[in-house]
Amino acid sequence: MSTATAQTDPAPWEERKARAASWFQELQETICAAFESLEDDLAGTKFADETPGRFEFQPWDREEGSDPHASGSALQGGGRMAIMRGRVFEKVGVNFSQVYGTFSPDFRKAIPGAEEDGSFWASGISLVAHMQSPVVPAVHMNTRMIVTSKSWFGGGADLTPMVEDKQDTEVFHAAFKDCCDEFDPDYYPRFKKWCDEYFYLPHRGEPRGIGGIFYDYLDEKGWEDDFAFTQAVGKTFNDIYPQIVRRHMDKDWTDSEREHQLVRRGRYVEFNLLYDRGTQFGLKSGGNTEAILMSMPPEAKWP
Amino acid sequence: MSTATAQTDPAPWEERKARAASWFQELQETICAAFESLEDDLAGTKFADETPGRFEFQPWDREEGSDPHASGSALQGGGRMAIMRGRVFEKVGVNFSQVYGTFSPDFRKAIPGAEEDGSFWASGISLVAHMQSPVVPAVHMNTRMIVTSKSWFGGGADLTPMVEDKQDTEVFHAAFKDCCDEFDPDYYPRFKKWCDEYFYLPHRGEPRGIGGIFYDYLDEKGWEDDFAFTQAVGKTFNDIYPQIVRRHMDKDWTDSEREHQLVRRGRYVEFNLLYDRGTQFGLKSGGNTEAILMSMPPEAKWP
Repeated sequence: MSTATAQTDPAPWEERKARAASWFQELQETICAAFESLEDDLAGTKFADETPGRFEFQPWDREEGSDPHASGSALQGGGRMAIMRGRVFEKVGVNFSQVYGTFSPDFRKAIPGAEEDGSFWASGISLVAHMQSPVVPAVHMNTRMIVTSKSWFGGGADLTPMVEDKQDTEVFHAAFKDCCDEFDPDYYPRFKKWCDEYFYLPHRGEPRGIGGIFYDYLDEKGWEDDFAFTQAVGKTFNDIYPQIVRRHMDKDWTDSEREHQLVRRGRYVEFNLLYDRGTQFGLKSGGNTEAILMSMPPEAKWP
Repeated sequence: MSTATAQTDPAPWEERKARAASWFQELQETICAAFESLEDDLAGTKFADETPGRFEFQPWDREEGSDPHASGSALQGGGRMAIMRGRVFEKVGVNFSQVYGTFSPDFRKAIPGAEEDGSFWASGISLVAHMQSPVVPAVHMNTRMIVTSKSWFGGGADLTPMVEDKQDTEVFHAAFKDCCDEFDPDYYPRFKKWCDEYFYLPHRGEPRGIGGIFYDYLDEKGWEDDFAFTQAVGKTFNDIYPQIVRRHMDKDWTDSEREHQLVRRGRYVEFNLLYDRGTQFGLKSGGNTEAILMSMPPEAKWP
C-alpha cells in the first residue's frame, strides 16, 4: 500500500486523522440539518399534525479497559450519536466516532496491518434511517478512515425500498455513478458489484435492497484523493437521499403496505446481526452497543 | 466416547435413530395438544372473544444439492413445522426434523466425529413460544440426537419472563432439578451453569432470561440412559410450562407492559441471530430457513 507509512512518519498522519475526523463530524452536522428540514417540510400523511422531529445528540466516550466483553481489545476515544424520532423519520441514527487502541490477538489476524502490535485508529460516520412511510425507502450510509500500520478508507451507501420504485433506483445509482466517475471510471462498476455481493442474505436468497456502492481498503490514489472520494460519497448521499424522500413523503399509505414494511425490516435486522461486518466488529471489539445497534429498526415483524 | 461405534456397527444405530426420531415426533404431537388446550381454556384478557388458536402443520423436505447457500454441505431429510398464532400464544413454533448428509469441509472441523468424511445424521425438536401477554413468560425448548462417527444428545429449556416472577423462576428450576436428579446429582448444577453461560448477551451484559438447563455432547451413561434423560427433559417441559402459562394467562396487562415485552423481544432476536449456535448452524449448513427463523418473535421493537 502506497500510504503504509503511518508508523514511520507520524506527523502527517496526525494531521490526516484530524482532518478526516473533523470531516466526518461536519458531515454529521450537515446531514442532521438536512433531515430536520425534511421533518419541517412534511405536508401530507397522518403525521402532518405532529411536531417536526429534532435530533438528540448524545456524546459518548470509552475509557481504556472499561469494557468487560472486549475480549482483550483496549479501546479509547468516543463519539457522538445523533438520533431523531420524527414524523418523516420514524427512527434515524447518525453516529460519529473516533476510537483508537489495541486489538485483541484474535482480531489482529483479520485486520490488515494490525498483525504486529494490534494498534489502530478509526474514525467514521454511520447512518441508518427507518422511515414512517412504507413508500419512502430506508437507507444506510457509512464512511470511515482506518489506520493500523496501514491506512485506508471504506464506506458506501445503499437504498432499501419496501416496494421498488424504478425512478428511485435509477437516480440513486446515477448519483453514485457520477460521484465515482469523477475519480475513476472503474470505481462505480467495482463498488456497485461489491455492494450487491455484500448486502445479500444467503439464507433468504435475497438482496437487502436495490444496492448502491460499497468499498473498503481504499488506498489507491494517495491519501488526498482517497479522502476527497470519501468526502464526495458523503456529499452525494446528502444530495440524493433527501430528493428521494421528498418525492414520496407526502403520500398516503395503506395498512398492508405498513405490514409489508415491518416484515421487510425483519430482513434488515437479519442482515445486520447475521452478516454485517461493522456490527459484528463493533460488538466484538467492545464498541458502544447503543451506538452500534442504533441501526436496528424501531419496529419489525416476523409474522 | 463410549458410544463411538456408530460407524462400525450400524444395525443398532439404525434402530436408535428411528426410536429417537419417533420420540421427537411424538413429543411434537403431545406439546401441540397441550398448547391447544391452553388456547381453549383462556377466560380473561382482551383476546378471550377470539377463536382459540390451532396449530398448522407444514411438512418440509430437502433434496440433496438443492440449496445454493449450503457452501458444500449436502443435506437430505426433512421435518414438520407446527406453527400456531393464537389468543394465548401470539406465535409459537414447534419444529421436528430429521436430516442427514455430509458437512462441508469448513463445518467438519467444528463438529465432533465429523472430521473424517463429514457424514452426519441429526434429529430433534425445537420450540420457541412468544406470548400475547407480557405477563406470561416466553420459552424455548430443544432436544436432539446427533450421529457422526460419534453420537450424542443435546438440548435444554429456558424461560424468558418479561417481568421476573419469583414463583415462576422457582418452579421452573425445581422441575428441571428434579428431572436431572433422577439421572445424576451433578446434572442440574452442571446444566444450569451451562445454560446461564450460553444464554447470555455479552454486548448487553445481560442474561436472556432466568435460565433453565442446557446440555450438549451428552454421551455419558450409555445410549439408553442418555436417551431416557432427553425424553425426561421433554416431559418435564410439557408438564411445567403449561402450569406457568395457566397461572398468568387470564391476567390483564398495560400498554407499557406490552411495550416492555416488545423491547425484550428485541434482545431475543439479538441473541438468536448473533449467538445462537442452532440458528447459525442451521442457516450456514443450508437448513430450512423458515423452520429455523420460526423462532423469531412476531413483533419486536428497538425504540
